[in-house]
Amino acid sequence: MITDLCGGVGAAKMLAGLRQVLSDDEIVGIVNVGDDLWLHGLRICPDLDTITYTLAGLNNTETGWGLSGESWRVMQELDALGGESWFSLGDRDLALHLYRTERLRNGDRLSAITADLLSHFGVGLRLLPATEDEIATRFDTKEQGNVSFQEYFVKFHHDLDVESVEVVGAPASSPTSGVLDALESAERIIISPSNPLISIDPILAIPGIAERLVARRSDVIAVSPLIGGKALKGPADRLLEQLGLSATSMGVATFYNDIASTLVIDEVDADDAPGVEELGVRCLVTKTVMDSPHAGAALAEVVLNG
Amino acid sequence: MITDLCGGVGAAKMLAGLRQVLSDDEIVGIVNVGDDLWLHGLRICPDLDTITYTLAGLNNTETGWGLSGESWRVMQELDALGGESWFSLGDRDLALHLYRTERLRNGDRLSAITADLLSHFGVGLRLLPATEDEIATRFDTKEQGNVSFQEYFVKFHHDLDVESVEVVGAPASSPTSGVLDALESAERIIISPSNPLISIDPILAIPGIAERLVARRSDVIAVSPLIGGKALKGPADRLLEQLGLSATSMGVATFYNDIASTLVIDEVDADDAPGVEELGVRCLVTKTVMDSPHAGAALAEVVLNG
Repeated sequence: MITDLCGGVGAAKMLAGLRQVLSDDEIVGIVNVGDDLWLHGLRICPDLDTITYTLAGLNNTETGWGLSGESWRVMQELDALGGESWFSLGDRDLALHLYRTERLRNGDRLSAITADLLSHFGVGLRLLPATEDEIATRFDTKEQGNVSFQEYFVKFHHDLDVESVEVVGAPASSPTSGVLDALESAERIIISPSNPLISIDPILAIPGIAERLVARRSDVIAVSPLIGGKALKGPADRLLEQLGLSATSMGVATFYNDIASTLVIDEVDADDAPGVEELGVRCLVTKTVMDSPHAGAALAEVVLNG
Repeated sequence: MITDLCGGVGAAKMLAGLRQVLSDDEIVGIVNVGDDLWLHGLRICPDLDTITYTLAGLNNTETGWGLSGESWRVMQELDALGGESWFSLGDRDLALHLYRTERLRNGDRLSAITADLLSHFGVGLRLLPATEDEIATRFDTKEQGNVSFQEYFVKFHHDLDVESVEVVGAPASSPTSGVLDALESAERIIISPSNPLISIDPILAIPGIAERLVARRSDVIAVSPLIGGKALKGPADRLLEQLGLSATSMGVATFYNDIASTLVIDEVDADDAPGVEELGVRCLVTKTVMDSPHAGAALAEVVLNG
């Protein structure tokens, strides 16, 4: 059994790769919920949904985001009403948010709802929201003061100078049932090529999780989200620098040093390997860009067997 | 200034008729909110919305319910997910529910949101939700026990034997600001041809409203929703009988006797006029079926001047 710490897009690709070399019942994903939000009365879980849609084969491969065959009728009408339409929710996507919100309001747990959705879509692996308590990643920024994750990411296109990141509610939260077990019993623990600071750190901020990872450090292998010092998607590179790390393999290795004994970096960053090893982190160099199913499977082989 | 107590479809037609003979700023509608519900995390206000859509000219005149040009993408997807899709919410309609819910969650009042929506749609009259507190009409039924309004009406197609109706929360609720003033200062108060027991009674159950109507009885004129002992739409006829009244003009007059000095009945029920008058209620006979703008205007003339 292997356990994978997950953000959104990068993690979805990592899990898709893992599914090619393992059976679904050998994989548990522990998923960031720091980006989750209430909007229009609906509970929206971007990382859980990105992964679910991707593994279900419903993601839009042309745009790189959203659902295939999506329509936008509700958002068009909401925009006409003068509503908050900066966070685009397609009609298909909205159906899932209505479904989840109704069940949450009826007292069902997010983990149970997530499991039922995966089952509905025919995906056999387990995804556990890192916590079922409401936590929220927030940013102190020079330009806009304190903003929510989605304001930072979507409304301001992460074009803000971040002074600090806080995961509100995390200190009082508890890991979802099964999370600590999955960390303790996994043969290997993978950290997906997600944003360390805003996808993985909110998972680590939940009491009990970081301690388990420290204890399992020799079995934890992280994949760097950087390619030549740049994030494939999102602001990981800028955030590393804004928060006092470097946007390099060494910056990522430093961030994960307490919890991961191995870092996988991309072949274009092969020159960084000695610098990573100098920090006391084993460095594996391979192609990390999962631009095809084959590439995903090849990366999965490395993180499982490298 | 005139004030109109309103349910949904019948009241929307009554108001549309009144607007033909009065200017918008002479009309205040006090609208039932006992049917309002939380569903999928959204606050839905069926009577307010039916009236708003109708007065905005957005109602679907072919089906007799819902919006024109509506689409159903979200409901189709929700149904596929196994969600609660018995309460049909079109994509256009959903946009309004998202808009209202986001504003309610941000602390805006239902009356302010309602006013802004009317303004958006270019409708100048005032609609006041009878209360801004959450109240909920519920039914004790022989077949299904205690059910909510929408379960009774939509899920079970009002094909249940009702033993009693309760407006949960009404005793502790307060009228919306402006409601009592509108009742006190109106030249005439109209009770729309809505269901007395489930559209008008939840308004009367809000403390302070019935007392004002009793005091204004000589200026209150009610329109019977029955045509030949049958409701044009909905279960008013059966409910009157199930709750110990008769499904006749006399049953309606008995129900409204404390608060209305005049009852308007349809010409097909002209024979009922003496029976109504015997109860101490003045009876006006006219065509009450508003099957055209002309018919609506003619009924408005009767309730204003009759």
